[in-house]
Amino acid sequence: MKSRVVILSGGIGGAKLALGLYRTLPADALTVVVNTGDDFRHLGLAISPDIDTLVYTLADLADPQRGWGRRDETWSFMAALSTLGGPQWFQLGDGDLAMHVERTRRLADGETLSAVTADIARRLGVRATVLPMSDAPVRTRLRTDAGWLDFQDYFVGRRCEPAVSEIRFDGAADATAAPGVLAALADPDLRAVVIAPSNPYVSIDPILAVPGLRDALADTAAPIVAVSPLIGGAAVKGPTAKMMRELGATASAAEVARRYAGLIDGFVVDTVDADAELPGGIRRIVAPTLMTSLEDRERLGRTVLASAQTCPRTRPATGRGT
Amino acid sequence: MKSRVVILSGGIGGAKLALGLYRTLPADALTVVVNTGDDFRHLGLAISPDIDTLVYTLADLADPQRGWGRRDETWSFMAALSTLGGPQWFQLGDGDLAMHVERTRRLADGETLSAVTADIARRLGVRATVLPMSDAPVRTRLRTDAGWLDFQDYFVGRRCEPAVSEIRFDGAADATAAPGVLAALADPDLRAVVIAPSNPYVSIDPILAVPGLRDALADTAAPIVAVSPLIGGAAVKGPTAKMMRELGATASAAEVARRYAGLIDGFVVDTVDADAELPGGIRRIVAPTLMTSLEDRERLGRTVLASAQTCPRTRPATGRGT
Repeated sequence: MKSRVVILSGGIGGAKLALGLYRTLPADALTVVVNTGDDFRHLGLAISPDIDTLVYTLADLADPQRGWGRRDETWSFMAALSTLGGPQWFQLGDGDLAMHVERTRRLADGETLSAVTADIARRLGVRATVLPMSDAPVRTRLRTDAGWLDFQDYFVGRRCEPAVSEIRFDGAADATAAPGVLAALADPDLRAVVIAPSNPYVSIDPILAVPGLRDALADTAAPIVAVSPLIGGAAVKGPTAKMMRELGATASAAEVARRYAGLIDGFVVDTVDADAELPGGIRRIVAPTLMTSLEDRERLGRTVLASAQTCPRTRPATGRGT
Repeated sequence: MKSRVVILSGGIGGAKLALGLYRTLPADALTVVVNTGDDFRHLGLAISPDIDTLVYTLADLADPQRGWGRRDETWSFMAALSTLGGPQWFQLGDGDLAMHVERTRRLADGETLSAVTADIARRLGVRATVLPMSDAPVRTRLRTDAGWLDFQDYFVGRRCEPAVSEIRFDGAADATAAPGVLAALADPDLRAVVIAPSNPYVSIDPILAVPGLRDALADTAAPIVAVSPLIGGAAVKGPTAKMMRELGATASAAEVARRYAGLIDGFVVDTVDADAELPGGIRRIVAPTLMTSLEDRERLGRTVLASAQTCPRTRPATGRGT
């Protein structure tokens, strides 16, 4: 049987399923292609929130309550920064700071984001391959009723409160996929491609906006299965449902599937959405998708892999590849 | 009586006396002109060790044991940095990091080191005026039996072990005194100038190397009193005595006074050095100079101020000023 699996992922929700797959598969069989549209500069530091969430999660260093940052964290830096009058809106734990400072230093020394990420993941004992979608800066920007906002300003600074009317990915048109991304999708040993239950608009779309990614997905011989980020019309975490409504769509698993029509072969919906009507050609897989425990993550990982095996390839190819 | 006092200072030893003066004088009467020859970039951060030691000491935030950094510090950053393979030779506490990150951010935004320092000192409740000697980068470099070394590489990285044969201050010739420095020395209300018991070669000489500083000292109407950094031929902390021997001088209080001949009017030696023969024209003041307790610092501060009142001005003026 083919052995390798690629997952396209944003932060928290995607990291949960990535961990489930990582623990289910042989350790080196998983490749995670991570959204970097959320990346930004703060306090002069290069911060890659989704990469960090993935690396911390796979390294078993993630904080289980907050969903971001490191477990057993201390907060002396933020306390001292407060007394100095520094910005407080983005929380940086003391141990987490090492990630940002070291990455910033190495990027300034001329290393690529993918090289730094690979080395840091390796040092933290992660045997999965964690790839940024691109080494070039792609920045998610949101047009809202408060004007155009950088992603972190919207997401953290304003707690997703402004209504979103348009989303763009600055730099995407000039970006290229990071080394290893297209090769992972073209690998003849590829068993499945998984689209994580991440926000389609601001976690998955930025990845798909990198030139070459959509074609590589169309051309891969492996089945592509997405997992719904919505359960009964609500997101487990984050603004997916709110954003869908603001953009004029229905907040439902079926609507997410429609966004992925032509791209995927199978779609996993939660048991509460067992009746969701999916676009023709997309196979519906019904399974519990709420990942509360580690066992939930592993079970959903196994379900996704098993269902991929049974998905007939239905999506159109570019006709250029494979 | 005139009220203002200026002290020229390096790090730990100088900060002790600065604190003694600060607690003895009206809170806003003290101006500290601080060596920045030790400043360097590390991990992309702008680090000013002597400024930080002064600010932390005057703000009562300094660690009393180590002599550098903050009290009640946590070390999660260094622990995490170690797992990422980052450099370990320079220790940065979690709270201390806020100082470096915030300073770096503000310098990158175009603020001057003196403006950032003044604001941070104010926010930390320091009512003394803390001035870097210059806003321009001056970098102390040491020629040693291990080659030319940056100061922190010599001081921290190699624990002062290489033998020093020459010292230079890169950038000093093109530097100008930071705003406020020359004015403080020309202030008609100036009661005394104190040269702290800091290393003459690498803490005081860089200050004196800034163009205009020596002339301003020559021209100030106030008495200038230095405090010996050596007690019985040994430094309380740091490489002063070792460095003096390596540079062909005798490690003694008298030798330090000879280095300051023509610059100072009075010189405070420890009681164990009561017989030190000072160059003609420099008044010898004998007092306990070991500053172990807070009371020691205050007592030495009072001694220095009282002795300054009794020092006849003996040093040559430039003939240009006052």
